Amino acid sequence: MKKINICVIGARSFSAGFLLKFLLQHEHVNINMLVSEKEGEDIEKIHPFLRGMLKKTTESYSKEKVVENNDVVFFHKNHGEFRDHTADLVDYAEARNRPVKFIDLSGDFRLKEQELYKRWYGFEHHRPDLLGKSVYGLTELYREAVKNATLIANPGCYPTATLLALAPLLEGGFIDGDQPIFIDALSGVSGAGNQPSGSNLAIHVEQNAMPYKIGHVHQHIPEMEQEISGMLKKKIEVTFAPHLLSFKYGILSTHYVQLKEACEWRDVYALYQRMYENEPFVRIMDSSDGKTFPEVRNVEGTNFCDIGFVTDKKSKVCVVISAIDNIVKGASGQAIQNMNVTCGFEETEGLPYGKALRKSAP
Amino acid sequence: MKKINICVIGARSFSAGFLLKFLLQHEHVNINMLVSEKEGEDIEKIHPFLRGMLKKTTESYSKEKVVENNDVVFFHKNHGEFRDHTADLVDYAEARNRPVKFIDLSGDFRLKEQELYKRWYGFEHHRPDLLGKSVYGLTELYREAVKNATLIANPGCYPTATLLALAPLLEGGFIDGDQPIFIDALSGVSGAGNQPSGSNLAIHVEQNAMPYKIGHVHQHIPEMEQEISGMLKKKIEVTFAPHLLSFKYGILSTHYVQLKEACEWRDVYALYQRMYENEPFVRIMDSSDGKTFPEVRNVEGTNFCDIGFVTDKKSKVCVVISAIDNIVKGASGQAIQNMNVTCGFEETEGLPYGKALRKSAP
Amino acid sequence: MKKINICVIGARSFSAGFLLKFLLQHEHVNINMLVSEKEGEDIEKIHPFLRGMLKKTTESYSKEKVVENNDVVFFHKNHGEFRDHTADLVDYAEARNRPVKFIDLSGDFRLKEQELYKRWYGFEHHRPDLLGKSVYGLTELYREAVKNATLIANPGCYPTATLLALAPLLEGGFIDGDQPIFIDALSGVSGAGNQPSGSNLAIHVEQNAMPYKIGHVHQHIPEMEQEISGMLKKKIEVTFAPHLLSFKYGILSTHYVQLKEACEWRDVYALYQRMYENEPFVRIMDSSDGKTFPEVRNVEGTNFCDIGFVTDKKSKVCVVISAIDNIVKGASGQAIQNMNVTCGFEETEGLPYGKALRKSAP
Amino acid sequence: MKKINICVIGARSFSAGFLLKFLLQHEHVNINMLVSEKEGEDIEKIHPFLRGMLKKTTESYSKEKVVENNDVVFFHKNHGEFRDHTADLVDYAEARNRPVKFIDLSGDFRLKEQELYKRWYGFEHHRPDLLGKSVYGLTELYREAVKNATLIANPGCYPTATLLALAPLLEGGFIDGDQPIFIDALSGVSGAGNQPSGSNLAIHVEQNAMPYKIGHVHQHIPEMEQEISGMLKKKIEVTFAPHLLSFKYGILSTHYVQLKEACEWRDVYALYQRMYENEPFVRIMDSSDGKTFPEVRNVEGTNFCDIGFVTDKKSKVCVVISAIDNIVKGASGQAIQNMNVTCGFEETEGLPYGKALRKSAP
Repeated sequence: MKKINICVIGARSFSAGFLLKFLLQHEHVNINMLVSEKEGEDIEKIHPFLRGMLKKTTESYSKEKVVENNDVVFFHKNHGEFRDHTADLVDYAEARNRPVKFIDLSGDFRLKEQELYKRWYGFEHHRPDLLGKSVYGLTELYREAVKNATLIANPGCYPTATLLALAPLLEGGFIDGDQPIFIDALSGVSGAGNQPSGSNLAIHVEQNAMPYKIGHVHQHIPEMEQEISGMLKKKIEVTFAPHLLSFKYGILSTHYVQLKEACEWRDVYALYQRMYENEPFVRIMDSSDGKTFPEVRNVEGTNFCDIGFVTDKKSKVCVVISAIDNIVKGASGQAIQNMNVTCGFEETEGLPYGKALRKSAP
Repeated sequence: MKKINICVIGARSFSAGFLLKFLLQHEHVNINMLVSEKEGEDIEKIHPFLRGMLKKTTESYSKEKVVENNDVVFFHKNHGEFRDHTADLVDYAEARNRPVKFIDLSGDFRLKEQELYKRWYGFEHHRPDLLGKSVYGLTELYREAVKNATLIANPGCYPTATLLALAPLLEGGFIDGDQPIFIDALSGVSGAGNQPSGSNLAIHVEQNAMPYKIGHVHQHIPEMEQEISGMLKKKIEVTFAPHLLSFKYGILSTHYVQLKEACEWRDVYALYQRMYENEPFVRIMDSSDGKTFPEVRNVEGTNFCDIGFVTDKKSKVCVVISAIDNIVKGASGQAIQNMNVTCGFEETEGLPYGKALRKSAP
Repeated sequence: MKKINICVIGARSFSAGFLLKFLLQHEHVNINMLVSEKEGEDIEKIHPFLRGMLKKTTESYSKEKVVENNDVVFFHKNHGEFRDHTADLVDYAEARNRPVKFIDLSGDFRLKEQELYKRWYGFEHHRPDLLGKSVYGLTELYREAVKNATLIANPGCYPTATLLALAPLLEGGFIDGDQPIFIDALSGVSGAGNQPSGSNLAIHVEQNAMPYKIGHVHQHIPEMEQEISGMLKKKIEVTFAPHLLSFKYGILSTHYVQLKEACEWRDVYALYQRMYENEPFVRIMDSSDGKTFPEVRNVEGTNFCDIGFVTDKKSKVCVVISAIDNIVKGASGQAIQNMNVTCGFEETEGLPYGKALRKSAP
Repeated sequence: MKKINICVIGARSFSAGFLLKFLLQHEHVNINMLVSEKEGEDIEKIHPFLRGMLKKTTESYSKEKVVENNDVVFFHKNHGEFRDHTADLVDYAEARNRPVKFIDLSGDFRLKEQELYKRWYGFEHHRPDLLGKSVYGLTELYREAVKNATLIANPGCYPTATLLALAPLLEGGFIDGDQPIFIDALSGVSGAGNQPSGSNLAIHVEQNAMPYKIGHVHQHIPEMEQEISGMLKKKIEVTFAPHLLSFKYGILSTHYVQLKEACEWRDVYALYQRMYENEPFVRIMDSSDGKTFPEVRNVEGTNFCDIGFVTDKKSKVCVVISAIDNIVKGASGQAIQNMNVTCGFEETEGLPYGKALRKSAP
């Protein structure tokens, strides 16, 4: 079978290393081009866990080479940094009539409203047309759109955990948006990247629990609000409290909401089951025993999102917990899932347990 | 100056080791008697960090010896396990006219309503009279009562972090109890004790974030509700979501509430400052910069409770974060603070930075 | 293609969970039978990371069913616990003329000298005949024997890291055994198992570095000495110092030896390259830059053994460092590697990066 | 009692924060002057654990002010960075006849041979006279010299752990220096400082065991060799293999040596006991039970050095293990210990358990 050619832009980033790790095991992929600001570097030195498996060096950016020689392009760049080049590539591919698929792991094309970029990311966005055309790549919610997309905006890690956790309640009409939505999220250190900052030194993170950007501050908030408001058909705001912890991979997100009406736990469970029953990467847990909750260790290294919840009939409170691996379902794994969908491959191909998940599918 | 004699019952427990560590540095204390089920053990073998500093062995329990030879008795036993003996000791001391002070670190005398023990702890409590007489030893809120107490019920770790965080809002009338109170707490592994259980093996805790007893389940809830209801003068229930993390010491607690009225951050700050300005162990942080929050590392090993918060005028949401060391302010440190208060010593004596805190006091 | 049937005895053990995780992704395997002392348990509840992928329950041990219905049997039992049953199964399969392959992850059949079991494991071994017939499954050193084995004694985690690290020096005649061999090993907590013990509680392991069984004490020593002595053709003893650390997976082993003759680093490098050039799971690193050493993070989750070393011409000292994942190459991964070899499958099948490793093979 | 004035140069460094934490609790000290490149910073913002206890801001360096207004000056600067200023200060104080004590925590005055600085630190040292006059502040070995010193070179963290571990064997003549000395050391992340580097990001350190500078490379080696050679009265070289682990504080050092003659464990034990019996900060453990070894958790936060060892009569091998807190005994704690000695205070004053150690002294 013919393999497609892959280009990774920003090959030095930590999540790019993971993307390559998964792509190496993908049946239909040829890792063709690695773009980095520093060219000529051996990718195995950059990501030493790849040693012995991928003999390639980085090269400098060339619009022409990227578009002419590749079928799928992944962007692993910081927010804002590459947005003009990305737009340029999309234009160029269209002009040349090259059916390249672009999957952007930054936030550059996730928001539909142009003006939000100014407020939340601090830059002017010049391409509202592409914001309109790009597809928000939360696969479970936008699978059909992803199939036909040219530019896929891969979701942020926090929004992935939160939107999958709340979607059934939102879409099922169990929440009306009149009560506040509180999102308390715990992130492992890989979420803090591999560029030194005030908070990602081991000395600051070890033996610590570190809240940051509490309230209505974090740049993942507009993405959550856009999608939640969309599902509610009503503009809402959320309260988001991220915390940095010392585990390496993963997000554990605890959501506090009030249901519109008092209902039984089993009704909520049925709702979640119904929405996700055919999803290979979403696992609903029976937390009604008070013991079985999503935990980071059970999703580490996988593309799963585990979800559990408890309800309190008296207060109508519902607490929904979700767990993902921030680098996999929260970044590179979901990017591959989107590639699989948009390229027509098996959705689980190349991802951890891919084969097993296919076997167990109904 | 004459020293008082101390007896520790349950000397093998992890928190007892910490109590001894602090008592060793206390000016007015003689560690007199160590009671454990297994007698004749060298305390330095049980708690190896004490090696070279405390040459004592454990002895078996004797009501007479405990009461006759000691001035203060600390109980480090599991909930329920020793409650009849504790009551017995209080009775015996009273009968013998011995002015012994009893400080119980278990939950056995924290709740005022007898019937709550059945529901939350699973045992019948036979001494409602002692529940009435015992003083809930959250020092900052009950200092005067602690002074005159005979039996002090040292608070649980989670309630300590939560009640200190919310007390100003509750007592200041900023919360009315009509909206839900959500408490999201992160505990280090020392909170899971040193008796093997399903969840405190390193293999389960490492690289994990583990929610447990989410909702209205954890045995610390009635203690929080009793105190919060007391401050509100109105019966309320809370939603409590504890999580076990891999850091060793500490609790980081994030509280989500809605204020009665929209108010400025600085008004809330003034409220907290006012309430805690003379408290040596409470530190209010200016989190309005979006960067300075309580963190576990800043309270580790100390008796401090650090508190910060953000407010959102539009939604009236207030997020209050508090951090304590679960074994110190959440257990043995607060027990010593209570001993200092009830014995008339300097409140900071024997505790970390004790001297410095005295110097810096107004 | 027809699939072989697999039976796992001791399905509750932590390493069995990993075995199943890999087997789920193996092309030629049907997970057929899960044996545990507690029957009727859902395997997904025991190993929650398997949720959604393996609908099977445990069953009780039956010699007949194990032998009649399976092609490969894995033993995940504690040392000594199952040895008589294992022998029984081998006998029974032979008697019935069933070509079953047995892969034992315990130490029960690793040592060739019967009397060593008494000293190092504390039990009498009754089957010297099987000790003679069993093959020590360090695949890289015994591949040919593994192919034809009936009973494979899967190596211990520490010996795997040490023997792969030292084999080139030993077989190449660079070490003569007249100087001591010092082995300093760091193990992650998963090496301490999921049965509570004095040292595997999170409270003991977190924020600690804990030496244990230092000197000539640990039960993995006779296994190392047997193999090292075999390569040297001379009886030697080693000094072994294991340490328990808080990382979750992995062993990092540092070996201090003196070479027979002063030699250049590049000569030693050539020796290692020669010995391991066709090995898919051994990666030799160029540590001569003083910066590139094996690290646990680069082998975590994989079946790799990374090896690096430095030499000092003046003192003839050679320091060899190796890193493995203790649960993968040190247990379940190597067990599958052995299964692949003895069943005639691709050696890398079902193991992490299996496909990529096949592609990159010469 | 009159208090002495303290100046800390390099107040932003992590170890300076710890120094201040201890000094705050010291009876005879006034924290007078905090020097940093960035002046006017609130020290409580730099080291947030000090909040509420030390209201001081940093000021810029002034030779005159440092010397005129202070009795003891601590240097927390990187190796080489401040060496000329340090020399300048010593000269100036002498010229002005000011009896200031200088305690340098960098490596700038630890080595006696001028030319070693070129090789190991990469700079020319211009003041061999001060190298001659400075006292190597390993308190237990140089107490008398420290008393009369003007310039104290506070030892490195690794050498502290190693020299205290080996001194009895070296001074007692149990080692002759003909056999290699292997030093395998595990350091917590605080040893990697709070300046971003390739290896101290959480993402690199978490879930990892990372060897670095293995062999004869690390800048702490000449310091170890100088002292060991001094005790042996014979030039020797050591092999040193440091490893970075994810625990926050501490060093666990395992030493592999061969004794000159076969001897009983109890003879070695007697040797250690004799040498250290009056030392408040050295604790010898009875590791002959195969279970009781130095562990990082037992020294964390303290100025202790715990030492244990095993011997093998047949091979004459002796394995000595030592544990310290790298920031306390390995840096700021020992600096205060040296200040106490040279200023005539109680040696344990201001240090953890100071009072208890005094009480328990013979």
